[in-house]
Amino acid sequence: MPFANELRVRYGECDPQGIVFNANYLLYFDIGVTELYREALGSWQAMVERGVDVVVAEANLRFRAPARFDDVIAVGAEVASFGTTSVTLAMDIRRDGELLVEGRLRQVFVDAKTWAKTEIPDWARDALGRFSSAAA
Amino acid sequence: MPFANELRVRYGECDPQGIVFNANYLLYFDIGVTELYREALGSWQAMVERGVDVVVAEANLRFRAPARFDDVIAVGAEVASFGTTSVTLAMDIRRDGELLVEGRLRQVFVDAKTWAKTEIPDWARDALGRFSSAAA
Amino acid sequence: MPFANELRVRYGECDPQGIVFNANYLLYFDIGVTELYREALGSWQAMVERGVDVVVAEANLRFRAPARFDDVIAVGAEVASFGTTSVTLAMDIRRDGELLVEGRLRQVFVDAKTWAKTEIPDWARDALGRFSSAAA
Amino acid sequence: MPFANELRVRYGECDPQGIVFNANYLLYFDIGVTELYREALGSWQAMVERGVDVVVAEANLRFRAPARFDDVIAVGAEVASFGTTSVTLAMDIRRDGELLVEGRLRQVFVDAKTWAKTEIPDWARDALGRFSSAAA
Repeated sequence: MPFANELRVRYGECDPQGIVFNANYLLYFDIGVTELYREALGSWQAMVERGVDVVVAEANLRFRAPARFDDVIAVGAEVASFGTTSVTLAMDIRRDGELLVEGRLRQVFVDAKTWAKTEIPDWARDALGRFSSAAA
Repeated sequence: MPFANELRVRYGECDPQGIVFNANYLLYFDIGVTELYREALGSWQAMVERGVDVVVAEANLRFRAPARFDDVIAVGAEVASFGTTSVTLAMDIRRDGELLVEGRLRQVFVDAKTWAKTEIPDWARDALGRFSSAAA
Repeated sequence: MPFANELRVRYGECDPQGIVFNANYLLYFDIGVTELYREALGSWQAMVERGVDVVVAEANLRFRAPARFDDVIAVGAEVASFGTTSVTLAMDIRRDGELLVEGRLRQVFVDAKTWAKTEIPDWARDALGRFSSAAA
Repeated sequence: MPFANELRVRYGECDPQGIVFNANYLLYFDIGVTELYREALGSWQAMVERGVDVVVAEANLRFRAPARFDDVIAVGAEVASFGTTSVTLAMDIRRDGELLVEGRLRQVFVDAKTWAKTEIPDWARDALGRFSSAAA
């Protein structure tokens, strides 16, 4: 993945099986995306001030192996494809290189005021494009 | 307690010790307060539309015994005292009558627009007063 | 859906956009599944005591419209298909009938002690089968 | 505070008021404590393997000012006092030095097997004592 963000698994994110509760991997995807956007575009707030926001339209997750309390994991992200108003990100979560979770997020750009679907602005497309698999 | 709201402990709220993660009891207090306000004042949104909102200024929790996955617990609340702009609620969490957690929340009324502290409106004081220990 | 479980959206589950944070819909799926299993098989703990547990292998979610604080939503579930060791559930989340989120969960049965994949026991297959789309 | 741990506020930790949901400050305390114990004693798991675990008996929080999405905050901790089986930690949360939340956690040492209260072992008392206000 052209981008990855490390985080440490928190105790409260783990369940009685001793592993990360399944919904929290989608939380980890969200954190990874926030950091990807920060790297590509500056802070989320800066993007909203330029007039667009992003909502999640679809999420897929395949769970290969569990993460545990105190594990340091890397949330990887790359741009898999662009549509007119949407971008699909390939995501994975690894611990010491071992694949734990992989998946995809499809995000839709919306007008930050009206929340209507909007074309991805060129500046956002260019900035995110640096993290595409094609660019790699 | 003059008011109590039942809920069932969710799997994702429990930690590797097999018990509810400690921060989630404060989440349960919040849910209990939402339901107390609904009973006293109608929905939270209705209160905001009348011009006031409420923020938490202080929280105290004493943990007596743990709740576990699938337990049905009751979150009890009563008004312990009123100040000019704040109200203190006594809270407890019980399972089949057994005390698990007890505590207090001090809440401050704020203007829903400016977020400045504001006197508790009479209609809110009267409605919440029905759930005071003095009234009981 | 042959099974649905109602819940009320909690304040802490909503994000600064004023809507349910996306990862929490996967939490809602989990709650729906817990209740489906309770209806079909008795409590989760009872299933574990009979020697099997269940882990999530794959999750898909498509977000159609957001839920908001205080909304009462119904989490629907039905058995879409059985494999030898896995079951696929179709899930949806509705508010007053309106589809908000739909998706799928693929779950794998494991030995409750060794966590090795295990064939779905007949008693579990029969009990869950009552909630299949074929049965409907 | 003799110890502080930085973290960045996550989007999903914020509520429709645009600020961190109140129960998540107790989650932040827990993360700060985990890191304090790591610094003092090595990993939590290492402590459990030496035969003791720690449970929270009491938590107090005073909310001074809100943290917001993307804020980098520091969770500070120091040992305020020791009892025979318990330790009281003073906690605070700051952003660029500004006090946002302050509070206390009283923790009780328990036998990692039986969960009975147990005297704080000398090695734990010595290691944590380095982070006491008296030591500062």
